[in-house]
Amino acid sequence: MSEFFTVLPPADAFAKLWAHLPTTPRAETISTTEALGRVTFEAIASPESLPAFPRSTMDGYAVRATDTFGASATLPAYLNLIGEVPMGAAPTFELCPTQCALVHTGGMIPTGANAVAQIENTQKVSEQEIEIIKAVGVGENTVNVGEDVAQGELVLPAGHVLRAQDLGGLLGLGLTTLNVAARPRVALLATGDEVVPPDSHTGPGQIRDINSYTVSGLIERAGGLPIRHGIIRDDFDALREAAQTALAQADVLILSAGSSVSVRDMTAEVINGLGQPGTLVHGVAVKPGKPTILAVAQGKPIFGLPGNPVSAFIIADLFVTPTLYRLQGCATPPRRPSVSATLTHNLPSAPGREDYVPVRLIEKDNALWAEPVFGKSNLIYTLVRADGLLRIPPDANGLSAGERVEIRLF
Amino acid sequence: MSEFFTVLPPADAFAKLWAHLPTTPRAETISTTEALGRVTFEAIASPESLPAFPRSTMDGYAVRATDTFGASATLPAYLNLIGEVPMGAAPTFELCPTQCALVHTGGMIPTGANAVAQIENTQKVSEQEIEIIKAVGVGENTVNVGEDVAQGELVLPAGHVLRAQDLGGLLGLGLTTLNVAARPRVALLATGDEVVPPDSHTGPGQIRDINSYTVSGLIERAGGLPIRHGIIRDDFDALREAAQTALAQADVLILSAGSSVSVRDMTAEVINGLGQPGTLVHGVAVKPGKPTILAVAQGKPIFGLPGNPVSAFIIADLFVTPTLYRLQGCATPPRRPSVSATLTHNLPSAPGREDYVPVRLIEKDNALWAEPVFGKSNLIYTLVRADGLLRIPPDANGLSAGERVEIRLF
Repeated sequence: MSEFFTVLPPADAFAKLWAHLPTTPRAETISTTEALGRVTFEAIASPESLPAFPRSTMDGYAVRATDTFGASATLPAYLNLIGEVPMGAAPTFELCPTQCALVHTGGMIPTGANAVAQIENTQKVSEQEIEIIKAVGVGENTVNVGEDVAQGELVLPAGHVLRAQDLGGLLGLGLTTLNVAARPRVALLATGDEVVPPDSHTGPGQIRDINSYTVSGLIERAGGLPIRHGIIRDDFDALREAAQTALAQADVLILSAGSSVSVRDMTAEVINGLGQPGTLVHGVAVKPGKPTILAVAQGKPIFGLPGNPVSAFIIADLFVTPTLYRLQGCATPPRRPSVSATLTHNLPSAPGREDYVPVRLIEKDNALWAEPVFGKSNLIYTLVRADGLLRIPPDANGLSAGERVEIRLF
Repeated sequence: MSEFFTVLPPADAFAKLWAHLPTTPRAETISTTEALGRVTFEAIASPESLPAFPRSTMDGYAVRATDTFGASATLPAYLNLIGEVPMGAAPTFELCPTQCALVHTGGMIPTGANAVAQIENTQKVSEQEIEIIKAVGVGENTVNVGEDVAQGELVLPAGHVLRAQDLGGLLGLGLTTLNVAARPRVALLATGDEVVPPDSHTGPGQIRDINSYTVSGLIERAGGLPIRHGIIRDDFDALREAAQTALAQADVLILSAGSSVSVRDMTAEVINGLGQPGTLVHGVAVKPGKPTILAVAQGKPIFGLPGNPVSAFIIADLFVTPTLYRLQGCATPPRRPSVSATLTHNLPSAPGREDYVPVRLIEKDNALWAEPVFGKSNLIYTLVRADGLLRIPPDANGLSAGERVEIRLF
């Protein structure tokens, strides 16, 4: 395939990829305590009501509300104390008119009672008699059966990324295991005769593999399981064989292509040989990252990332991250932190493509400034020195110093 | 200690806690590939220059820039092709005036050359002769030694939360292991005679433990290691013994206190018995969450969280999360996602305290609305149904429907 290809805007490229991919994730059953950040496979309904019994929300006396009507400091209601509600058990008594019972926060409301008079609004007259100096309404200072969740109520939808409170909520209902989307296994192949593993001494002309690790980090963040297959030499048969093996064992294949045109062309050819429909997008209207390949074979997404570390990172962030969430049944990835800042420099841009510029955030004069980190797209430290990315939209001719911009943080 | 205590604003409470805590984390050496989200223990300087050799950023011909000066399509420069730079090795030749050599993207610039003419701006006249139709300046289409990182340059500060690009950058320098802050071990004790484990059937008056799991999730998110010690019965000696054992084995102790006043008082007494200086803050000007205890014993932070699930979550989010980052040497936790939205309801608030209200985000009429999720602070599902928290500042008498508000997402 030629170097000069038709480039697509990211949204169109993504839609083209997704037209060929499965919409239902693989399910797996795990312990709820291990489910932080995982995605629900199915909607979850509550098997029971929470709370399962009426509870007090205060320390005080369980009463019949009618017995307190009109009560005040000058005209208290007097009630007979018949006992104390034990914590964690049902009271052994029922409440009759003009009776009350000591109850603690979280304790069960005895049958017959329908409100709790706060301890602060009561006075103990004797061991048997309590003075109520403030009226309470029906249901006051109590939580009803099912007030938190009713039995059968939908508590979480499918495709929901589980947060700390969700785990607590599910465990509170006794749901100790649940079905979540399996974590997508993502095979990573690095290519390039000049690339050596990070633990190698670099000889003349050699550089260490960076992309396998930056992209692994993004995969992990998106809930995927990176499987690094190491560095494949720039040889068609070797790359084809490695790609076939890797794809068979994974749900997603990512090739971090060599950066020269000949190696890129070889990567495209290898990808096309993996199965139908093959390459769907060759070239995206994104800078850096134009020579990106999006493909599908054996029902699995395949990405040919550019070789330059900055391009590979930005493309993985733009395309691989949302794909991994989609494969887990989550159509919209969780929102990323972003901040508004004032741009410090003019940034030219060609219309028709999206530019992504690494920026550093600087606090100065009580304001937040976004300073572009200039550098070629093969310099990984432009991203290390940056706090986030600034997107220049495709309809702009660039941005001017002093403009307010939104920075998407890493 | 009495129920009526002096409440402190969160910032003052936090400062009081931090005056008594160590500022240096424990270090641990780990593999860089496993370091995503971990915090650097020390500043890291580069052991070498990256790249270690001058590289081409284009496919083309390595040249001496002076040999191309004035070259154009109508008046090309003609250079002698003396060879091809192999990928991943040093060229075996040097470049003399009027010579050029084929070089691929990422290839080493031969000695004598100082620029690369892009292949698109050249023409092959014969096997030995190349026509250059566009002049290149010194350094054009090349990356110099150390242009990404210079040897000895500080690449990351201490206390930095490691991101995907940081791992790639460090591995690119051959730094395959690094010293990070050890993950704080956080012991969690739940109390309450009414509380049973999530895998239990609940009898009358019993509820399942929720706080151990919501707080565990927040601990994990902040880089800590939750160690759940289960549910301790409401008995002073049992709680004291469990707290002592748990504190000895951990870096942080969290007690999720029972919700009744008597149990809260017992928790305060147990905390005070663990060592000096003991309780520093008893009561914070936060709703929900007022009856919070912040303490230090044996040089370790201790938190007495309120028993209500919503209060426990909000207080853990406000105090435990930044404490865990601080214990890892990171003074400012990573920024959290937030969005602006329009408030749908009036929200009254008492001045002098911060209120935190769970809100649901709703997209309607092309705008984002923040709808409060109303419900008592013992209803965990008010947080499950919410997308984030709205903070009502202490100097406000509340917020009005229609106001623009900032929602901190979970």
